[in-house]
Amino acid sequence: MSLAIISPGRNPQIWIDALRKYDPEIKIQVYPEIQHPEEVEMALLWQHPRGYLKTFPNLKLISSLGAGVDHILSDPAVPDSMPIVRIVDEKLTWSMTNYVVMGVLNFHRQLTRYQKDQKRKVWDMTNPEIPVRVGVMGVGALGGDVLDKLNYMGFDVVGFGFSEKESFPYPYFSKKQLQEFLDNINVLVCLLPLTPDTEGILNKNLFEKCQKGTFLINVARGKHLVEEDLIPAIDEGYLSGALLDVYRVEPLPEEHPFWEESRIQLTPHIASVTNPTAAAPQIIENFKRMKSNQALINLVNRDRGY
Amino acid sequence: MSLAIISPGRNPQIWIDALRKYDPEIKIQVYPEIQHPEEVEMALLWQHPRGYLKTFPNLKLISSLGAGVDHILSDPAVPDSMPIVRIVDEKLTWSMTNYVVMGVLNFHRQLTRYQKDQKRKVWDMTNPEIPVRVGVMGVGALGGDVLDKLNYMGFDVVGFGFSEKESFPYPYFSKKQLQEFLDNINVLVCLLPLTPDTEGILNKNLFEKCQKGTFLINVARGKHLVEEDLIPAIDEGYLSGALLDVYRVEPLPEEHPFWEESRIQLTPHIASVTNPTAAAPQIIENFKRMKSNQALINLVNRDRGY
Repeated sequence: MSLAIISPGRNPQIWIDALRKYDPEIKIQVYPEIQHPEEVEMALLWQHPRGYLKTFPNLKLISSLGAGVDHILSDPAVPDSMPIVRIVDEKLTWSMTNYVVMGVLNFHRQLTRYQKDQKRKVWDMTNPEIPVRVGVMGVGALGGDVLDKLNYMGFDVVGFGFSEKESFPYPYFSKKQLQEFLDNINVLVCLLPLTPDTEGILNKNLFEKCQKGTFLINVARGKHLVEEDLIPAIDEGYLSGALLDVYRVEPLPEEHPFWEESRIQLTPHIASVTNPTAAAPQIIENFKRMKSNQALINLVNRDRGY
Repeated sequence: MSLAIISPGRNPQIWIDALRKYDPEIKIQVYPEIQHPEEVEMALLWQHPRGYLKTFPNLKLISSLGAGVDHILSDPAVPDSMPIVRIVDEKLTWSMTNYVVMGVLNFHRQLTRYQKDQKRKVWDMTNPEIPVRVGVMGVGALGGDVLDKLNYMGFDVVGFGFSEKESFPYPYFSKKQLQEFLDNINVLVCLLPLTPDTEGILNKNLFEKCQKGTFLINVARGKHLVEEDLIPAIDEGYLSGALLDVYRVEPLPEEHPFWEESRIQLTPHIASVTNPTAAAPQIIENFKRMKSNQALINLVNRDRGY
C-alpha cells in the first residue's frame, strides 16, 4: 500500500525527503511515474490533472499539499464520499500574516512614492503617512491572525465573513453588510476560501462600493478576482492600487496586462508556501489513521468548502 | 512674556495653530521675525542657527520640537544650566515602529527582488523568505517598542545598549558584547540616541564584524553612520543593503552617491514625524510649569544625552 504524490510541474523530492524522514519505510509513488496504481491508498495533490484519480481503484484518502482544497473540490471526478484533508501549519499562517502586514505598511508609509522620489532625487517630507483602516475578508485561522497582529500594532481593523457571528473581537460585518464594511476601510485584504459563493467576489460591482483610493491585497485565490475589472477600478479611482499574489492562470502569462501596470505589485504565489518539513508529520499521521480507521485530522468540511 | 519658534526652513504655521488651540492667548514669536527678544522665556527649537539663543536675555526653558535633542546639546551657546525638554509622543513611537517593521518585512520577504522580477516578467517561486534575526541598537522607548512588536509577530529579536542591564525581556548585549550581538543577527536597526559615544558607531569596523549579508536600517540620526563606509561594506558583502531615513546633511545633497545606489533605499527623514497636535499640550504644559516654577515634564538628562 502506498502514497502517491501528484503535483505536476513541481519538484517532488523535497516532499519525498520530508515524508521519509518521519517514516523511512513508507512507499511513495510519484506522478507521472506511477507503476502500481492499485497500491495507492492516499493521494497527495496539488493541481492534479482533472479526472486522474479514477486511476486508483483502492484510493481511501486525499490530502491537499497546502491549506487550500479548491483544486480538489472543483474536480467532479473526486467521489463525494472520499475524505479530504488539508495542511494546517502555523508557519503558513505566520508567512501569510507577514506578507499582508508588509503590504499594509508599504501602503500606509507610501513605499512606492519614496522609491519614485529616490529615482528623481526628490526630498519631499510632506504627509508621510496615509491613515489606514484595514478590512479583512475571511476571518478564519489566516484572517484572524492578520487581524490580531495588525490590532496589536495599533491599526484599526474590521472583519467580514459570509456567516453571522454573535461575538467577535473586532467590528464584524456579514454578507448583507458589505457596503457598511467597505465604508469603514481603505485597505481591503482578501483571505476568503474559494467557494462558489466567493468566486469572483472582487469585481467591478464591489470596487464601485469602495471608498475612493482603497488599496486591495489579494492573497487568497486568483479566482476571487475578476481580473479584467481591476485596472478599470484603479483608473476610475475606486482603488489606488493592488498587491496580488495569486492569479487566474499561474504562472501569470507573459502577455497579462498586470505585469506592466505600475500601480499593481505582483508576487508569484509566495505569500505563504507550505513547508514540507512542517507538513510531513500530519500527512504521515493521517496515513496511519486512515489505515487503522481512526478519526482524521484537518478534515475538510465539503459544505463549508475548507 | 512669549514663546519663540526657531525652526528655519519649515513652515511654522502648523505649530502656531496647534499651540493656539490649547492656549488661545499665548504670545508666539517666530524666527526670523522676532521683534521682542527680551520677552522670550521659552524657545522651541529645530535645527536653530548656532549661537542664536544669545539673543534672548530672559530665556528660561528650551524645548525641542521633536524627540531628539542632539541639535540643541551640540550648540555650545546653550548654557549648561538651561533646562531642556523634549517631545515624548506615543504617535512618534508608533510611526517609528511601523517604519522599522516595514523595513524588516521588506527584507525578509525580498520586496525588491519581486519588484525586479515583475519588471522582467519573471515568475520565480524559489526561496521566498530570508530567515531573519533582528538586532536593535538602543532599547529605550522607541527600540523597546520595535522589539515588542517584532517579538509579537513571531520574529527572533535581540537588543544592544551601552549600559549593563540586570534584566531585560529579550536577549541583551552591552557595549563590550558588540561582536556577540552582531553574530546573532542579520538585520541591524539603529535607534540609539546621538551622543559622543554613539556618533559614527555605524562604521567600517562595525560592518566588518557583521554576519555576511546583514541588512542595515538607520532611523536614528545621520551622524550615527560614517556614510563613506556604507557602499564599500555592501560591495564587500558584509551588508546586503540598507534602508536609511537620516543623513549627515539633510536634505540629502543632490550629488550624494546614496541617491543612485539601488541597494540603498532612502526616505527623507519621515520615519517618525512629530505631530504638532499631539505635541502642543506638553509644550503648553511645560510653559505653564516653567512660569509657576514647577517640575518640568520630559526633562532631558544632559549626562545621558536624551
